[in-house]
Amino acid sequence: VSVFKKIAGGVTAPQGFKASGIHAGIKGPKLDMALVLSDRPAAVAGTFTSNRVQGNTVKLCQEHLTGRVGQAIIVNSGNANACVGPQGMRDARRMAQLTGERLGLDDKLVFVASTGVIGRPMPMEKIEAGIHLAVEAVAPKGGPLAAKAIMTTDTVDKQVALEFKIDGKTVRLGGMAKGAGMIEPHMATMLAFFTTDAAVEPRALQKCLSAAVERSFNRISVDGDQSCNDTALLLANGRAGNRVLSEKHGEWGKFSAAVNEAALALALAIVQDGEGATKFVTIHVKGAASDADALLAARAISRSLLVKTAFCGEDPNWGRIIDAVGYSGAEVCADRADIHFDKVPAFRQGRALPEMLKALEGVMKQKRFSIHVNLRLGQGADTVYTCDCSEEYVRINSEYTT
Amino acid sequence: VSVFKKIAGGVTAPQGFKASGIHAGIKGPKLDMALVLSDRPAAVAGTFTSNRVQGNTVKLCQEHLTGRVGQAIIVNSGNANACVGPQGMRDARRMAQLTGERLGLDDKLVFVASTGVIGRPMPMEKIEAGIHLAVEAVAPKGGPLAAKAIMTTDTVDKQVALEFKIDGKTVRLGGMAKGAGMIEPHMATMLAFFTTDAAVEPRALQKCLSAAVERSFNRISVDGDQSCNDTALLLANGRAGNRVLSEKHGEWGKFSAAVNEAALALALAIVQDGEGATKFVTIHVKGAASDADALLAARAISRSLLVKTAFCGEDPNWGRIIDAVGYSGAEVCADRADIHFDKVPAFRQGRALPEMLKALEGVMKQKRFSIHVNLRLGQGADTVYTCDCSEEYVRINSEYTT
Repeated sequence: VSVFKKIAGGVTAPQGFKASGIHAGIKGPKLDMALVLSDRPAAVAGTFTSNRVQGNTVKLCQEHLTGRVGQAIIVNSGNANACVGPQGMRDARRMAQLTGERLGLDDKLVFVASTGVIGRPMPMEKIEAGIHLAVEAVAPKGGPLAAKAIMTTDTVDKQVALEFKIDGKTVRLGGMAKGAGMIEPHMATMLAFFTTDAAVEPRALQKCLSAAVERSFNRISVDGDQSCNDTALLLANGRAGNRVLSEKHGEWGKFSAAVNEAALALALAIVQDGEGATKFVTIHVKGAASDADALLAARAISRSLLVKTAFCGEDPNWGRIIDAVGYSGAEVCADRADIHFDKVPAFRQGRALPEMLKALEGVMKQKRFSIHVNLRLGQGADTVYTCDCSEEYVRINSEYTT
Repeated sequence: VSVFKKIAGGVTAPQGFKASGIHAGIKGPKLDMALVLSDRPAAVAGTFTSNRVQGNTVKLCQEHLTGRVGQAIIVNSGNANACVGPQGMRDARRMAQLTGERLGLDDKLVFVASTGVIGRPMPMEKIEAGIHLAVEAVAPKGGPLAAKAIMTTDTVDKQVALEFKIDGKTVRLGGMAKGAGMIEPHMATMLAFFTTDAAVEPRALQKCLSAAVERSFNRISVDGDQSCNDTALLLANGRAGNRVLSEKHGEWGKFSAAVNEAALALALAIVQDGEGATKFVTIHVKGAASDADALLAARAISRSLLVKTAFCGEDPNWGRIIDAVGYSGAEVCADRADIHFDKVPAFRQGRALPEMLKALEGVMKQKRFSIHVNLRLGQGADTVYTCDCSEEYVRINSEYTT
């Protein structure tokens, strides 16, 4: 249960932020460009894909992040601006320039993100017209439209907004994310944007975002494919009037917890909206020789196509789970391990419990359940979130170029 | 093109080998137990899964392999004898004992392999009756029946037999394999059994098998899940009358090449029969910073669910390919890389070639094609074989416990 008050508004919930979502015609009839704007320069933190093939907007964001200050984020869906040669970087810069010109801001204060098909030149005429529309449309209640405009194969938009007190002042934290396929972030995420009106010291802000991403976006997997455009940005504009937050501030823990909660909420929303997903599954591994081993084991389970198709078929196939742990690289002794589905034991110290089959099938009929693996070797633990792999996933990804 | 003569007979093609495939009733109405028998003790080589969760028969084979001599292999399908507690090892030993008793052989000369569902106790009454039947049925032309009896979700049996001369003597090499899902061997394979009537020094035989497995079974992926029962065995009984082969023998290269060819033939047959597969795809990576990098890149492509669903949809989606190379761990600079589908270029030095789309779609309509990735960074190269991922794969693995 959250200790923070959940409110509406997404990225425009915090004071001093406006946003818009508009239709630029990049791909079909949907909203496809979003703008997030702070009324003053804000401290910025960012994390990016660790894929060695990076989209051009990822490169540009990393460049602009060196200043640790930002005021606007312009985003397009429908084209990833990745693997398009040197023109791609020019197009990314041009997006920042055009947005800056229209808003009267230095380019360096504009962050750019793109998501969509890899390898197609950016349709710059449409993008340019789209930037004009997005700037015109920007509004204090524009968060929800912006959240829709960044979607690709997502079936629902993903937003969060929390309210809490720092120094007795009301502070708000908003966020939006997109992602449904090519999801296995590792040290990054798909696209996620957070805003807060808290005043936060930039280095502390980066530390806070990195830690939150590590326990949220870096703990999910839809299909094991890590995107080359993953980007998370957090803007803190200080409008709330609190004393500048840093690790020395007495309420730093509260602010960090809010960022963690917001990041986890969006990460889990991505898994729940995983392409073709019918099940949301939490994989807890404990008793591992180390935390690193627990993560290896949990990731291998969350990626295994055989495990994920068994989830889809509601088959309590713990054999595929222990097999995945076996090849994960984690230390494991099958004769000591236990596996539970929710609270129902399936495998105890190396042996099946066939008498539990009916109860296990009952667990799997639910839309959400947990797998608990106890390796009984040490104190290592970690948790990863995943979904099943259905025929629909294959249909989505074989029928469309995404 | 093979320099070896292809002949019929599978594992019973070489002199002095008999085999059988019988129905023991372990799972449904199919043939489910196989026996391979040499008329004299043979040198044995073996490679096994590197999964840390190992089936009991894998453990027993490794124990028996220390003697480097063997005469019989008893195999069951329908039950993996894995993760069943201490009874599993007792059952594996009992299979060797019963087979040895019935054949008048020391247990240590009997190798045992199991494949099928993980975590169910072995139905030892049926296995015991099956061993009796298998021993009674063993025959000089039993190879093809044995190949059928080791199948699980395979749709076709997989056999090979080659003939060539060593020291002027006719030498034969036979083999059979099974596997269609849970296929990504790494340092091992599903089940593959080879026989030869060549006389071969045991250590050289092991080296030869290990090398062949490394370039064949260890270069394929159906679904990225590595089985805990992978086993490859090669028996050499010396009936051909050649001088004992070792690395010092003038025709060692020829014998090694035959083992390589036989192993690759069976490995490729496994990929072609991959669960739900409609495409057979060879992934060549060259120009990598090192051979290890080339293998990382090729494996990442071969495992990527997005790449494999694109193959299924006949979508020449090189963007998903370069994305997978990006997260593979291999060094890559997207602006230097080239990607061809067969001989048709899709991506050249970081840029798409949209004018090739029609030609690329033509390549993908074929049942078999190759992906050529040139990273243009160095001399590293490797090749991996894979198949597409279709809705049928998901159906097979969500509807049945395998």
